[in-house]
Amino acid sequence: MTTNSSDTPQARLQALGLSLPVPASPVANYVPWTRAGNLVFVSGQLPIGPGGAIEPAHKGKLGASVSVEVGQAAARAAALNVLAQAAAASGDLARLRAIRLGGFINSAPDFASLPQVLNGASDLVAAVLGEAGRHARFAVGVAQLPLDAAVEVEGVFEILD
Amino acid sequence: MTTNSSDTPQARLQALGLSLPVPASPVANYVPWTRAGNLVFVSGQLPIGPGGAIEPAHKGKLGASVSVEVGQAAARAAALNVLAQAAAASGDLARLRAIRLGGFINSAPDFASLPQVLNGASDLVAAVLGEAGRHARFAVGVAQLPLDAAVEVEGVFEILD
Amino acid sequence: MTTNSSDTPQARLQALGLSLPVPASPVANYVPWTRAGNLVFVSGQLPIGPGGAIEPAHKGKLGASVSVEVGQAAARAAALNVLAQAAAASGDLARLRAIRLGGFINSAPDFASLPQVLNGASDLVAAVLGEAGRHARFAVGVAQLPLDAAVEVEGVFEILD
Repeated sequence: MTTNSSDTPQARLQALGLSLPVPASPVANYVPWTRAGNLVFVSGQLPIGPGGAIEPAHKGKLGASVSVEVGQAAARAAALNVLAQAAAASGDLARLRAIRLGGFINSAPDFASLPQVLNGASDLVAAVLGEAGRHARFAVGVAQLPLDAAVEVEGVFEILD
Repeated sequence: MTTNSSDTPQARLQALGLSLPVPASPVANYVPWTRAGNLVFVSGQLPIGPGGAIEPAHKGKLGASVSVEVGQAAARAAALNVLAQAAAASGDLARLRAIRLGGFINSAPDFASLPQVLNGASDLVAAVLGEAGRHARFAVGVAQLPLDAAVEVEGVFEILD
Repeated sequence: MTTNSSDTPQARLQALGLSLPVPASPVANYVPWTRAGNLVFVSGQLPIGPGGAIEPAHKGKLGASVSVEVGQAAARAAALNVLAQAAAASGDLARLRAIRLGGFINSAPDFASLPQVLNGASDLVAAVLGEAGRHARFAVGVAQLPLDAAVEVEGVFEILD
C-alpha cells in the first residue's frame, strides 16, 4: 500500500469538510482520556458542537422526538469529539487505531434501530482512520444521558508506535 | 493439573451438545472483534441462533414478555456467539481466557433480577473455558436493544501464548 | 514530588474516615476482578454497605425516589467497593492507577443530571488515589440495576510496577 500526503487521516478529515474540535478540558475529578500502555480510554463524549453546546436537535430520545437521521448526526458529532480526544492522547490521528466504540443511545422503550443510529459514529471513524478505523462496538438503548443528549460514545484506541 | 484430550474447551463444548456458530461477518464499518496486544474486544453479540435470526422468544423485555428462564437461554445464546468471535480471534478456544463480560438486558423499569439472567452467559463461558472462563462482569438493565433482543453481551478476552 | 507516610492512598482513606470493605467473594461463575497484563477489570459494584447489604435509601431511581445527593452517596459507596476489589487485585492501593470508571445510574426517563451523581464515585477515587486517581469515565442512565440499586460502577485500573 502506498501512502501519499493526501492519504492520511488528517487529509480525509479535511475532505469531509471537518476539523477536530479543541478537545474539551478536564471537568471535575475525571479527565477526557487516560492511557495505559498503548491503550487509550476515551471518556463518554456527547454531541457537543463547535460552539461548545449540544444543538437542541441533538437532545431527546430516539423513538420519540429524535429521528434516526438526526440521531446519526448526533452520533457523528459525538464520534468527532471521541477522535479529538484520542488524537490529543496520541499526538497525531495517524498513530491511532480504533479498537472498540461503546454507543449509548437515549431511547424510548420500543426503539430498536440502535445500530443504524450508531452507524453515524462508526462511519465517521472508518472514513477518517481508514483501515485503522475498523472497530468492535456495542450499541444499546439507555433510559437517559447527560444533558438529555441523544447519543453518548466512549472508545478504546491503540496508539501505534 | 493433568490435561487429556477430553479436558479441552472444545470437548466441553461438545459435551454440552453445542458447537460454535460460524462467526457473523463484518457488518458495515465495524467488525465483530479487534485485537490490541493480547487483548481481544468482541462486539456486542445478540442471541442470534443457528438459523441466523433471533428466535421470537428471545426478543422483548425481561419483566414484561420474557421470563427469567427464557432470558437466561437468550444470554447463553448471545454468549455462544461471543465465544465464537473470540475463538475466531485467537484461532483456538484453548488459547482464550475470559476477562470481562458486559451484559445488557432489555428490561422493564422494575426488573431487578439482572444477575440471574446474565448467569446464562457466565455459566456457559465457565463451562466451556473452565478455569480460564472465570471473568469479571457487569449486568445492567437497558431501555432497548438492537432488533428488540432480550440480551446483548460484549466481552474482553486475553489470548494466551 | 516528595512522598511521606501521610501522603499515601491508605492515609487519605483514613483521613476521610473510611476503610476498605472486605472485598466480596466470588459469586457463581464470575469473579470480582480479573487481571490481564497490568490491567485490572473490576466487576460492576453496587452500593453495598459495611453490613453487607444495600441501604434502602440507596435503592430506587434517580429522578423518582432518589435525590441527587443520595445518589452521590450511593455512587461513593459503590466506588469504595470498586477500590476494595482493585486493591485486592494489586495487593496495595498505592500500586493502583485508575483508568476508566463506568457509571450506570438507575434513572427515570427524564433524569439527566447523571454526571453530578457519578461525581460521588469520581471524587472518592480522586481523593483516595490522588494524581493516580484521575480517570476516564462514562455516565449513563439505565432502566434498572441489580437489586434495584441506585448506582452500579465498574472500573479498569492499571497496576504500577
